[in-house]
Formats: sequence, C-alpha cells, structure tokens
Amino acid sequence: MNLLEIIKKLNLECVIKNDTEISGLNTLTDATDSEISFLDNKKYIKDLEDTKAAAVFLKEEFLPLVPTGTVGLVTKEPYLNLAYASKLFAPKLIEIDGLAPKVGKNSHIMNNVHIGKNVTIGHDCTIMAGAYISDNVKIGSGTTIYSNVTVYRDCTIGKNCIVHAGSAIGSDGFGFAHTKEGKHVKIYQNGNVIIQNDVEIGSNTTIDRAVFGTTLIKEGCKIDNLVQIAHNCIIGEYTIITAQVGVSGSTTLGRNVVMGGQSATAGHLSIAPFTTIAARGGVTKSITENGKTWAGFPLFEHRPWLKLQGKIAKLIK
Amino acid sequence: MNLLEIIKKLNLECVIKNDTEISGLNTLTDATDSEISFLDNKKYIKDLEDTKAAAVFLKEEFLPLVPTGTVGLVTKEPYLNLAYASKLFAPKLIEIDGLAPKVGKNSHIMNNVHIGKNVTIGHDCTIMAGAYISDNVKIGSGTTIYSNVTVYRDCTIGKNCIVHAGSAIGSDGFGFAHTKEGKHVKIYQNGNVIIQNDVEIGSNTTIDRAVFGTTLIKEGCKIDNLVQIAHNCIIGEYTIITAQVGVSGSTTLGRNVVMGGQSATAGHLSIAPFTTIAARGGVTKSITENGKTWAGFPLFEHRPWLKLQGKIAKLIK
Amino acid sequence: MNLLEIIKKLNLECVIKNDTEISGLNTLTDATDSEISFLDNKKYIKDLEDTKAAAVFLKEEFLPLVPTGTVGLVTKEPYLNLAYASKLFAPKLIEIDGLAPKVGKNSHIMNNVHIGKNVTIGHDCTIMAGAYISDNVKIGSGTTIYSNVTVYRDCTIGKNCIVHAGSAIGSDGFGFAHTKEGKHVKIYQNGNVIIQNDVEIGSNTTIDRAVFGTTLIKEGCKIDNLVQIAHNCIIGEYTIITAQVGVSGSTTLGRNVVMGGQSATAGHLSIAPFTTIAARGGVTKSITENGKTWAGFPLFEHRPWLKLQGKIAKLIK
Repeated sequence: MNLLEIIKKLNLECVIKNDTEISGLNTLTDATDSEISFLDNKKYIKDLEDTKAAAVFLKEEFLPLVPTGTVGLVTKEPYLNLAYASKLFAPKLIEIDGLAPKVGKNSHIMNNVHIGKNVTIGHDCTIMAGAYISDNVKIGSGTTIYSNVTVYRDCTIGKNCIVHAGSAIGSDGFGFAHTKEGKHVKIYQNGNVIIQNDVEIGSNTTIDRAVFGTTLIKEGCKIDNLVQIAHNCIIGEYTIITAQVGVSGSTTLGRNVVMGGQSATAGHLSIAPFTTIAARGGVTKSITENGKTWAGFPLFEHRPWLKLQGKIAKLIK
Repeated sequence: MNLLEIIKKLNLECVIKNDTEISGLNTLTDATDSEISFLDNKKYIKDLEDTKAAAVFLKEEFLPLVPTGTVGLVTKEPYLNLAYASKLFAPKLIEIDGLAPKVGKNSHIMNNVHIGKNVTIGHDCTIMAGAYISDNVKIGSGTTIYSNVTVYRDCTIGKNCIVHAGSAIGSDGFGFAHTKEGKHVKIYQNGNVIIQNDVEIGSNTTIDRAVFGTTLIKEGCKIDNLVQIAHNCIIGEYTIITAQVGVSGSTTLGRNVVMGGQSATAGHLSIAPFTTIAARGGVTKSITENGKTWAGFPLFEHRPWLKLQGKIAKLIK
Repeated sequence: MNLLEIIKKLNLECVIKNDTEISGLNTLTDATDSEISFLDNKKYIKDLEDTKAAAVFLKEEFLPLVPTGTVGLVTKEPYLNLAYASKLFAPKLIEIDGLAPKVGKNSHIMNNVHIGKNVTIGHDCTIMAGAYISDNVKIGSGTTIYSNVTVYRDCTIGKNCIVHAGSAIGSDGFGFAHTKEGKHVKIYQNGNVIIQNDVEIGSNTTIDRAVFGTTLIKEGCKIDNLVQIAHNCIIGEYTIITAQVGVSGSTTLGRNVVMGGQSATAGHLSIAPFTTIAARGGVTKSITENGKTWAGFPLFEHRPWLKLQGKIAKLIK
C-alpha cells in the first residue's frame, strides 16, 4: 500500500512530495524506510530524531523534529491513527491460497489436526488431534504438539519443543487505542511469536504475538501451566517460568531467570540474568543486577523481605 | 413441570391449594409467578415480602412473611432443596432434535467445527477448526471465533466480536449446596452468557453461565487472556480486564472500569464506572464513587497506598 | 530394562553382582525391589536406610548407608541421572497397538473425539466434540467430558464426574534437573492422575500427572476454572478449590479444605482437614490443626490477619 493511499484512508490532511510503498508499522527505533511509526509519548522524542521510518504519526508540535527523509503525519491523535493504520496491514484470518504443508520423515500428524497453508513441519514431530496449526507456521524437528493447542499464523516453534494441551501460541496481544468517548480501537497485532529450540510449554498457557516484530522465547526455556506472556516480551535462554505467572508486554527477561508461581512483572521493563523472583513476587521496576533473589509486592530483595515480614508479624501483638 | 410434582420429587411436606406450572428457578427479586425462589439468608427478608415467585423454599420461621399468592415450601434446608430442584430444570447436555444451523452470507465455518441445533450465525463470521458451538447459540455478524473455543448452549455472542483460542464461554458457574456431612450438591446452572457487540476476549479465558438469568458482558468490553468471570457478573460497557484477573460471582462492574493484571474482586459487589484497579488489587467491598484509582490487598486509594508502601519499606531499616 | 543396561546407557561406573529387571523409578519410600530411586537431599537419609529400591542414584559419601540388597549407583549428580533414567522409562507418546475402546451402554461419544487404545468408558457418559481421550484412560459411568478437554494417557476419571471445556488432565508435571551450565533436563513424568467419583472440574483447569505414582483427586472434590494442580498432589475428599488457585507439587490437602480464589500453596506441605484458606492466601508451611481459617501472604490466622490489616491501614495516617 502506498503512503498516499494510507493518508487518504485515514482522512489525514497531509501533503507529501514523493509517494512511497509502505510495508507495515513499527516503533521509531525499528522502523525501516518502508514502514510508518508514531510518537505518542514525549519520552520517545530522541527516537523520533533518529528514526528511519518513511512516515510518523505525531502531533503538530513535534513536526520540526522529524528527520529529513521522513514524513510527519500530523494528527491530534497519533495512537488512534496507528490503530486505524494497523487494520490496513492486518493479514487475512485464513489464507485460501498457498502451498500444502511440507512434513518431514517420521512425523505423525493425527486426524482432526488443522494445518494451514505454507506450513513446514520437520521430521520426527507428533501433532495430536485437535491441534490447530495456522498458515505460515514453522515447526522444527522432534517437536511434540499436544491436543487442542493453537498455533496462530506466522509463528515459529523450534526443534525438540513440547507444547502441552490447550496452549495458545500467537494469540493477539492486548493492544487498543482509546477514543475521547472511551471506546477502544483495536491495534491489529501484525507481529508473531518465535519459540527457539528445546522449549517446553505447559498446558493452557498463552503467549501473545507481537504488535510489530516478534515475541521471542529463547532456547531451553521451560514454561509451566496457565502462564501469560504478553506481546513483545523477550524471554532469555533457560529461563524458568512456573505456573500462573504473568509477564506483561514488552518486558525482557535475561537468561536463567526463575519466576516463582503466580509472580508477575509490569510491562516495558527488563530483568537481569540469573535473577530469581519468589512466588507471588511483583516486579514493577527493571532489575539491573545479575543473580539476586527478590520477593514480595512491592518487590524487595529476599532477605530484607523476610525480615520485613517478621516485623509486620510483630504488629499483630 | 407442576409445583405439585416438584414437591413430590423433593419429598417436601407441603399442602398446596392450587397447582401451577413452574418454568424454572430464580432469585426472590427476579422470580415471576411461574418460578420458584428461595430464602437462605436473613439479609433477603425484604425481598421475600416483595417477591412475585410462585413458591419459595424457606425455613418455617419465615412462613408468616410469605406474600399472598406465593406458596411457602417449608424445609430445614432451603438451599439444598434449591440445588435438588435445579436438577429438575437442567436442559439436556446435547439436543438431539431441533433445527439445522442458519449461517449468514460470507461466513466461513471451517472443518471440524461442531455446531449444535437451533444455532444462528450471522454474515461475515469466521469459525475456526475445533470450535464447539453448542445448541441454541447465536453469533452476530462479523464475529471471529478462533480454534478450540467452546460456546456452551443458550449463549449469545454479539456482532464484530473476537474470541481467541481455547476460551470457554458459558461453562457452569461454581455453585453448590452443602449437606451436613460436608458433601456438595450441584446447583445446576440453567442461565446463560450474553456477550454484546464489539467485545474481544483473549485466549483461554473462562466466562461462566449464570445460575439463573444471564452473565452479561456489555458492548465494547476488552478482556485479555486467562481471565475468570464467574456466574451472574455484569461487566459494563467499554470495561477493560487484563490478563489473569478474577471477577467473583454476581459482581457488577460499571462502564469503563479498568482491572489491572491479576487483580480480583470478591463476589456480590459493585464497582463504580471509570474506576481503575491497579495490578494485583483485591476489591472486597463495593466502590461507589466514580473515577478513582485503587490498589493493594486490602484495597486503598492508589496515592495513600503508594505512601503506605513507602512507610512499610522503612520498617526494613 | 535390566539394571546393567541402565548403568551402561547412563555411563555410570558401577560394578554389580546380580543383574535385575527394573520396571521404573520411584521415591526412596515408595520404590519396590524392581525400581530405582535417588538421594539428592540429605533430608532423606533416613529414607535411604529404609528403602527397598533395587538401586539408588547417590553421591559416594552416602554409599555406606545403602541397605543390603540395594545397589548404590554412585554419581556426582544423582538428580541429573534420575532425569536421564526417566527418559528410558517414558512410554510412547501414542500407542499404535492395543485394544479398541470399550464403551458402555447409553454413552454418547460425539464426532471429532479422539479415543486412544485400551480406553474404557462406562455407561451413560457424554464425551463432546474435540475431547482427546488418550491411551489406557478409564472413565467411569455417568461422567461428562466437555469439548476440547484433554485427558492424557494412563489417567483415570471416576463415576459421575464433570470436566468442563478446555481442561487438561494429566499434562506433564514441571520437573527438571539442571546441568552445571544452567540447562534443564526433563524428568519424564511417568506417573498419572486419578480422579475419583463425583468430582467436578471447571474450564481450562490443569491437573498435572505425577512424576512417579499418582496425582490424586479424591471423591466429591469441586474444582473451579483456571486452577493449577501440580504433580503428585493429593486433594482430599470434598475439598473445594475456587478459581485461579495454584497448588504446588507434592502438596496434600485434607478432606473438606476450602481454597479461596487466587490462593496458593508452596510445594511439599500438607493442609489439615476442614481448613479454609481465604482468597489470595499463600500457604508456605504445613497446617496441622483442623478446621481453622487462614488468610494473607505470609499466612496468618484469619482474625489476627484482619487486625493486622487494621494496624497497617493506620500507618497511612
């Protein structure tokens, strides 16, 4: 789709000198010169100045900061326009055309498995009845997908992975722009999920696809049942996430992090490698030092937290 | 079923003057003159005096308060008798007879979708493989049901909704009466779920059907993954419920409420419009004032809660 | 498989006098003379001295404590060797041979239900479309399995049970041994789940199979939606577990325990009969006295906890 066409569809009042082909949307930092981005939060002004995006939705006041070669798409509501534009780039729910699946040797695809177009499945895989493998999915060799798992379109699962029953890989991230009237406009989640090799995922766990780019689960992670991993998270190698944990959007966990049962993180933060979060711990700020153990909500280092609990217990007397 | 027949099946010792056709069970407030109700908690004596119910299970002491035209069904265990009676009105698990589904234009029902009797699906819908659409379900136009979703019997989903993979709409509310010996007797959940237009529901979320009447999700609500909404809740327009939230039974959320991740409410309370509950907040009393932000468990207003956390942190030193 | 063969496959340097047939792995306490066990934690030295196991993985220092008739399998990494050995005893993912299912009278198995080999289903059962009943599963009479439920191999469900949509019964427990390099080696979960009579299980709940032996849900339990019950738990008769509760591994709940919403337990502890855990309560130590009510995290008795909250609230002023 061309930039001019997008401007027209969104009813923006913008004059551009040269039209250009647009392939999608992205953040200011990651956008290429064929992508549109947005500035909705002053925090990211620096990123605007450095962006390579073809065009950026922004308020008029920021127009002077737009770098040469980038078009400023002036609007009072940049985030809403991002939402409207996201719909223009949403792929079809189901591909009608495309190649039949390629399945490697010794792979066992049971009956009642749906396999979409352009799917590649390696050798020695087992896909059990009721699994739904959507279009353009890649599954590495030696991987087992249990019954009633759904893998949404464009996602990749590595080699020697196990995905237990009922999990959803690649469901839409929870992203909405809001109108003045308090209605919510869907930001189409046009990214995907990539799960690297040797990952095990428990039953009824949900891992959301990225809004742009990729939600990434790195090699050797072990994820338990009923875990929620939101859009655009990056989970480091060999990280362990136990049952009922929630990792909010755009959060990065380093390698060999351990998240105890029912613990959670806020969004847009990072947790240093080899960190342990005790059960029920709630992480609201980034953790920058490697290898420490944290507990509680609000979060404290584990030993002071234990002392604190002792002091609180004394209040009882 | 006639009242006399019900009295006989439950082994109640009741003499009635006029028999009457009974269509089901309901609360004292909502029961019509063809429904039976119950009084199990003195709190609801006022409702007994005003009820229009055909008959009411109650203890002998409350018999004098039963209004004219209503039959008092005296029992030492009104709630247990409600449970026994609920079974008499439970519909079949699966309808054998009934009409073939009506499906509108341009709707795409994939293979391996189960569609029950008397189902109506609008135009431009997509129902993906592995979905289970039970008897008497209505799905509005433009709605997408992802794979492995279950919609239980008698439920309604509006127009332009999205239900992500693995969610269960209309599973039984968690309701039991208890015998003196500590056994639990199922209260059959003969109500339903109605989801209005423009609602999005994440993956592996559960929304329970009402015990009587309807669990209601109003227009424009956005509900994330792994959320639990219990029986008889009413969720107001444009309310946002993020991942792993639990809303207990018979709780009403006003419009444009925001529930942060892993927050929860107790049952039988109401939350005023435009309220925000921060992540992990636990609501145990009704919130009557509009537009405030609350946090913590027990719940405080957000600013005092932040201060409190500061004071608690000082205890550590 | 013979002991000698196992020693060879694991590259252990062990000399044994008499070879013996090994049928599987088990704890020191439960192992028979055809099973191998392990000692990884000094806490269990007493169990080593009393074990009947054919052989035990252990560090050299504990070799003198091995009882006569048991072989000490010396290794620097007993738990890792347990993990390697567990793979040797893992059954096939899907049985190819075996008997066709036996289904009792008046049972209704819908289309698109997968039923594995050697399955027995009683009379008057309903199994809805999309359910996956794996090999060697037994389902008692009068039981209803809703759509998109998965029952993993070797599990048993009793009579008059209800399992709501999307639940996973018998998915793998979350068990791994860890290498020095921080990688995780799967401990194959070769046990099962047994659910006794009159149990109801909500939607999208997960109950993990035991690593050895059985995860046991006793008669009359009622379990709500989105509950996690980890491997090797024992849930006592008539216990009630409400939505989003997490019960960690090897925890035993007595009869008629009530777990409030989002409450949880740590692993390897026990909770006395007739205990109530309030919503959000977090149990980190065994509860030995019957019939009390507890709340909070850390956990207090309910009344002192309420007082404590009052005192904490005063801090705000």
